[in-house]
Amino acid sequence: MAEAETLVEVWRGPFRESIHRGHAVVWGADDGVLASWGNPDAVILPRSSCKMIQALPLIESGAAEAFGLSEAQLALSCASHNGAAIHTNMVTEWLGGLGIDPETALRCGPQMPGDPDARTALIKTDTSPCQIHNNCSGKHSGFLTLAKHLGAGPEYVDPDHPVQLAVKAAFEEVTGEDTPGFGIDGCSAPNFATSVTGLARAMGRFAAATGEGDARDRAMHRLTRAMAAHPVLVAGEGKSCTALMRAMGGRASVKTGAEAVFIAIVPERRIGVALKIEDGTTRGSEAAITHILTRLGVLDAHHPAARTYTHGPIRNRRDIVTGEYRLSGSFADWTL
Amino acid sequence: MAEAETLVEVWRGPFRESIHRGHAVVWGADDGVLASWGNPDAVILPRSSCKMIQALPLIESGAAEAFGLSEAQLALSCASHNGAAIHTNMVTEWLGGLGIDPETALRCGPQMPGDPDARTALIKTDTSPCQIHNNCSGKHSGFLTLAKHLGAGPEYVDPDHPVQLAVKAAFEEVTGEDTPGFGIDGCSAPNFATSVTGLARAMGRFAAATGEGDARDRAMHRLTRAMAAHPVLVAGEGKSCTALMRAMGGRASVKTGAEAVFIAIVPERRIGVALKIEDGTTRGSEAAITHILTRLGVLDAHHPAARTYTHGPIRNRRDIVTGEYRLSGSFADWTL
Repeated sequence: MAEAETLVEVWRGPFRESIHRGHAVVWGADDGVLASWGNPDAVILPRSSCKMIQALPLIESGAAEAFGLSEAQLALSCASHNGAAIHTNMVTEWLGGLGIDPETALRCGPQMPGDPDARTALIKTDTSPCQIHNNCSGKHSGFLTLAKHLGAGPEYVDPDHPVQLAVKAAFEEVTGEDTPGFGIDGCSAPNFATSVTGLARAMGRFAAATGEGDARDRAMHRLTRAMAAHPVLVAGEGKSCTALMRAMGGRASVKTGAEAVFIAIVPERRIGVALKIEDGTTRGSEAAITHILTRLGVLDAHHPAARTYTHGPIRNRRDIVTGEYRLSGSFADWTL
Repeated sequence: MAEAETLVEVWRGPFRESIHRGHAVVWGADDGVLASWGNPDAVILPRSSCKMIQALPLIESGAAEAFGLSEAQLALSCASHNGAAIHTNMVTEWLGGLGIDPETALRCGPQMPGDPDARTALIKTDTSPCQIHNNCSGKHSGFLTLAKHLGAGPEYVDPDHPVQLAVKAAFEEVTGEDTPGFGIDGCSAPNFATSVTGLARAMGRFAAATGEGDARDRAMHRLTRAMAAHPVLVAGEGKSCTALMRAMGGRASVKTGAEAVFIAIVPERRIGVALKIEDGTTRGSEAAITHILTRLGVLDAHHPAARTYTHGPIRNRRDIVTGEYRLSGSFADWTL
């Protein structure tokens, strides 16, 4: 079984100070594996990188249509947002429109927002963060919407709740694999495991969706477009998903997950990408996905966002450049 | 050349979600390498883990004695503190006593304190952090004290400044290696490279110091004791160095460094330890050093701090246990 491969290096002065090894698969909807590094069969928990899969039942069930969800709301249902007002206001309005009280209904738990303004406002007023600030509150709003549509009970994160059973079924269908099980995510929802290849295959299917096929095809197409059309809702100012999707001008949708998972959906090439840095460090997954996107031709390697994630520079507390990121070996040289 | 070895695993439910590989050396002052994992010859930047080496010239030059530095000040000179009032007040008083204005003289740069109270106070008053809040301000106070004693110029972080030349000489002597060069640290001081073995050898010398030998021996002994006697000054509430030194009741001194370096000085066994997690993740270095300390017999493996760093548990936003850390393979089974 192949080991993880060194994909990203962290340099300080003349020394390679740290490295990030990982597994990655570039999947063509028409041709299967187009490239891979490390072990494509490595079993991973996709974490938040699979939120667009978790949102499929929301659309396919008819819930999104029944409640008139907007494209922006669909983007937010795929988000790991940073709790800025633009995100929390939308969650409050969304659930309010359904007659659902966010703080009693949500099961994601409270989280201090990463957005500096939102965080500062809470600290200055001695206010504790709420569940709407949780980076997953959009996904959970989608879960609650589906639960209401199905007339299901309130414990929507239980693995045997109809919402999670629907998520599991969609997950296994789009990854093309029986999941070997799940872990409980930071937001308390079950997170189903798959191989890196399975996750890339799923993203290839999203990439190949035209919006003119069956219900699955149309749902995939809507979610991919919603993410690309609303980069700031999917993450937030200063976050890599937002910066990269903006830099690509809608040509691809990307999503990060905790413990250094990252996916990309590239419709114009009918390609999906999935990768996992084995040590769980986000700077590694950001560098790796950014490099792949440049080599797929949908992101200009000279764009400031692309340079930042693949090369740094690393600056210290006096703003002195102390180091940089470098792409490693054969991964750096790869072209498709 | 040996590769890094998997030392620590991060589990979520039934899945090994991430791993941390590293290099580690346990060095006996009398016997040399007692145990090693990964590549003992791996060249690393020790970062803040070598602050007690950087403080040697402060004592050996006579500066500490000339200015009447206390044991607490010596501990702070070895610190990566979290900018709590107990740290910043001491820096202000220390430099004030020397007639030095901290904010014009320091070259470490400003840093938002990690201490929750200090951070909240700054945010609530719209106050920017200062250089005294920088986690390295104690080390830099030591540098400034030495510079004053030597009558040297103000740019004390320049690699050819007398302070840094003295640090380099001490570093090469105690590691027993010619340094292959330096990187610029987060605090703008040069940080000299050595092998993992070199760093462990240096810590073995600290461990073997009795306080009854030459100037080097006495300086090493004082610094080791100062750290062990003032755990909170070396890091701060909630920080691993502080928690581990408290848990050991002064039986060993430990120090972390950025990018997942960790050292330990165990006087009663005349043993020094150095390790580096290759991906730079602190949770990995904390777990690894904690495990080694338990196996060296100076830390009770059942102590809550020891359990926390080696096993977790990992909890989510609703305080549900979602995973745990595990020590890996032969490293887990190691005894000395």
